[in-house]
Amino acid sequence: MKARICSTSKSGSTLVLSQDKDIDLIELEQLLESVGWTRRPIKLVRCALEHSLFKVGIWRHDRRIPRLLGFARCTGDGVIEATVWDVAVHPHYQGIGLGSALMKYVIDTLKVTGVERVNLFADPDVLNFYIQQGWELEPKNRRCAFCYSA
Amino acid sequence: MKARICSTSKSGSTLVLSQDKDIDLIELEQLLESVGWTRRPIKLVRCALEHSLFKVGIWRHDRRIPRLLGFARCTGDGVIEATVWDVAVHPHYQGIGLGSALMKYVIDTLKVTGVERVNLFADPDVLNFYIQQGWELEPKNRRCAFCYSA
Repeated sequence: MKARICSTSKSGSTLVLSQDKDIDLIELEQLLESVGWTRRPIKLVRCALEHSLFKVGIWRHDRRIPRLLGFARCTGDGVIEATVWDVAVHPHYQGIGLGSALMKYVIDTLKVTGVERVNLFADPDVLNFYIQQGWELEPKNRRCAFCYSA
Repeated sequence: MKARICSTSKSGSTLVLSQDKDIDLIELEQLLESVGWTRRPIKLVRCALEHSLFKVGIWRHDRRIPRLLGFARCTGDGVIEATVWDVAVHPHYQGIGLGSALMKYVIDTLKVTGVERVNLFADPDVLNFYIQQGWELEPKNRRCAFCYSA
């Protein structure tokens, strides 16, 4: 499973989900900035993407002016643990199912590799988005999430 | 930074922290089982370790009968995000600073690679252990942790 046509009729154009198409790193950082995140040095982003299990983009399908509308990437060992990062859909294209399509693509891809448990950290304003898609909010008397600023 | 002598006087023998020494996978699963986790297929564990950024073991330093007393491993992209997994110290050797030494080694190793933020999921009974070492419990109005059983 590599590319997938995104079947939403509301966007006004054909959208393609793919993990093979090259990611323009400046375009990626612009996308992440559009959802409120701070830009990161391009050199770091390039290295991070190279060392990810895979990355998925949603593009507006236009040969002359393709545009990155959504993105997600995944790190992990590929068999036991996987973590999803940098999930974003451009604000102009939110509410038409692109986020769901993106996360379904990510989960389907991980199922092929055999990973049983997938983790992610989400901003508080998108909790319902993940809960509606079957993600379980931690902690559930089971695992507590920590972070450490090195 | 590869190997480090663990300077605790309470263990009764010299302990060595190292990320170079080969991990016996059956011994690793026995260690993780000793702290209450379910054993995993050795084939999966081998693959997961191969695809980790690094793994650290604590060994009782005995050339004839070395013994794995502690373990941790890390996945991630190596520059932006890192996640620590499988942190364990054998119950017979808990309470003498091995867990702290292990986590310090992990953080020091990640600092060298430049990763700024490290994540982990902890069982509820070890919350204080991480809090005392400066780890921040999520969510802090900032990020909420999710998991998904694929």
